[in-house]
Amino acid sequence: MESKPLADKILPFEEREMSLREFLDSRGVPYEIVKIFDPIGPAADIEDADVIIVSTESYRGALAVNERRREKGLSELKIIVIPLVLAEDGKPISSSRVRSGEIDTEGRPLI
Amino acid sequence: MESKPLADKILPFEEREMSLREFLDSRGVPYEIVKIFDPIGPAADIEDADVIIVSTESYRGALAVNERRREKGLSELKIIVIPLVLAEDGKPISSSRVRSGEIDTEGRPLI
Repeated sequence: MESKPLADKILPFEEREMSLREFLDSRGVPYEIVKIFDPIGPAADIEDADVIIVSTESYRGALAVNERRREKGLSELKIIVIPLVLAEDGKPISSSRVRSGEIDTEGRPLI
Repeated sequence: MESKPLADKILPFEEREMSLREFLDSRGVPYEIVKIFDPIGPAADIEDADVIIVSTESYRGALAVNERRREKGLSELKIIVIPLVLAEDGKPISSSRVRSGEIDTEGRPLI
């Protein structure tokens, strides 16, 4: 976390969790939010998981999850890679870019 | 094609297409088989496509498809990466290994 750009501007976990909860509740689907402390988290341990969803930026993390599952004798997960949503400048929207004040959360340029 | 291992042992397109057709017909789902001559094929041109399914070995091809789509102003595809099925020796089943006589198509060791 400390190594991320503008780490001091990252909102606290509780605030980010609340935004996510509001979004998920609005979709009416069941979910569980798990705080992770490394790139693999519980994904290498859940026996009846089928799928892991990542972005192109976190694809290597999903490969690491599957390697760990293979070592443990668990089935490998299908990996669904979602394209990054582009800002108006054609580059991906990212929380780092929002924190730096370059774009807003809708991808509109601010500078 | 010529650069693949044991290229002279690859079955003709028509025979491989027939096996695939038999398998797909047994599932009763609609499909269309398209012969491709490069790693991208028509995937960069189909406007209403949503998803591309690849293996870990062809993931980079899917990224190339999305790059081409972006250049053309088309939406990027979700990429679904299916794990390779492992042979009894714990290494992936591949047509190269079947052709070399190392394993059969069910992943059983032959040598």
